[in-house]
Amino acid sequence: MSTFITFEGGEGAGKSTQVKLLGEYLTEQNIPVVLTQEPTGTPLGRKIGDILFHRGHSDMCPETELFLFCAARAQHVRDVIRPALACGKYVLCDRFSDATYAYQAAGRGLDPRFIQTVNDYSAPGLKPDLTLLFDLPAETGLARANRRDATHGNPSSADRFEKEKRDFHERVRAAYLALARREPERFRVVDAARTIDEIAADVRRHVAAFMQHRR
Amino acid sequence: MSTFITFEGGEGAGKSTQVKLLGEYLTEQNIPVVLTQEPTGTPLGRKIGDILFHRGHSDMCPETELFLFCAARAQHVRDVIRPALACGKYVLCDRFSDATYAYQAAGRGLDPRFIQTVNDYSAPGLKPDLTLLFDLPAETGLARANRRDATHGNPSSADRFEKEKRDFHERVRAAYLALARREPERFRVVDAARTIDEIAADVRRHVAAFMQHRR
Repeated sequence: MSTFITFEGGEGAGKSTQVKLLGEYLTEQNIPVVLTQEPTGTPLGRKIGDILFHRGHSDMCPETELFLFCAARAQHVRDVIRPALACGKYVLCDRFSDATYAYQAAGRGLDPRFIQTVNDYSAPGLKPDLTLLFDLPAETGLARANRRDATHGNPSSADRFEKEKRDFHERVRAAYLALARREPERFRVVDAARTIDEIAADVRRHVAAFMQHRR
Repeated sequence: MSTFITFEGGEGAGKSTQVKLLGEYLTEQNIPVVLTQEPTGTPLGRKIGDILFHRGHSDMCPETELFLFCAARAQHVRDVIRPALACGKYVLCDRFSDATYAYQAAGRGLDPRFIQTVNDYSAPGLKPDLTLLFDLPAETGLARANRRDATHGNPSSADRFEKEKRDFHERVRAAYLALARREPERFRVVDAARTIDEIAADVRRHVAAFMQHRR
């Protein structure tokens, strides 16, 4: 049965690693999976992402940022997510609409009702079946993201979001946790301050329980 | 007194030429002007425009197109249009919100109410004082645009919009004319099938009458 699982959380929470590990785990069980991410899950989205994450665009206005994420999402939903779900696959998606709430409403201060309107329009009727929220203190996540950048040979390669102040990232974290409290049946909060293997075991446990429950 | 004048119309209507000519005319009269255009009126907007007009993006979904135009508009309004109006300038803008109605609602078939919502959000409280609609049959305009492309050494350089079928451009034209009928106090319809000088004389006449009336 097709299933749409989203991975959410702040910077350095290890989402993309966990998407990959869960993808491998499901594949071993002969479950067809598609791994993707927002906003860069389509060729068009990658061009939009180049604009969104560019360190030089520090004066991008919040409304522009919101519209760019929605632009990428509409294409991603039509070209990648819906077709995969339509043929019964598991779609594992690194960030989705919840990120728009956390970052553009709580982070940037845009009107949450307007965000809901454009979120709904960019992905009409599409909601994740399960959302894994990788939670950790903003400071820990940012330190990890910095180490990751350094490992890739460019210690000063922080993107436009990573460069935001700690306060911004704390608001994003609090907003994610508030979303999880509001929809406990959809969200699972995973303690992301632990090791990759510990987190991966938790993820598999949550997904297995979800599949079991749905049978 | 600051004045916001927009130039609207289909492909090959000669808008950008007329923006320039009116700019020269007003400058000669010591009226401070800013000439700009959407979506490419800011550095960020030019990057967004590269995505929007790219011939290769023939499968861009209509919602993505809408959001990209709005993304560019929000930045343009904040960085260019509002600051110029705030210091009393005349802003002459090649395309604005009306184009989003004509192209994305009538052309692409998106919900006009949603377009109004995002238009309002991308330019809160900002409406042109005067809108010049350069009207001509779609076929005439497209033939002109083709000649212009050929003159620039690349006869096959038609962008993603110019490549749309004639039917699309007829719908855009009809939508523009409907907008003009709905707001006759803001719109002036200019017959754009004539020579550049004839059109420019009309434009100056309309603008002079508008300034006279407002005193």
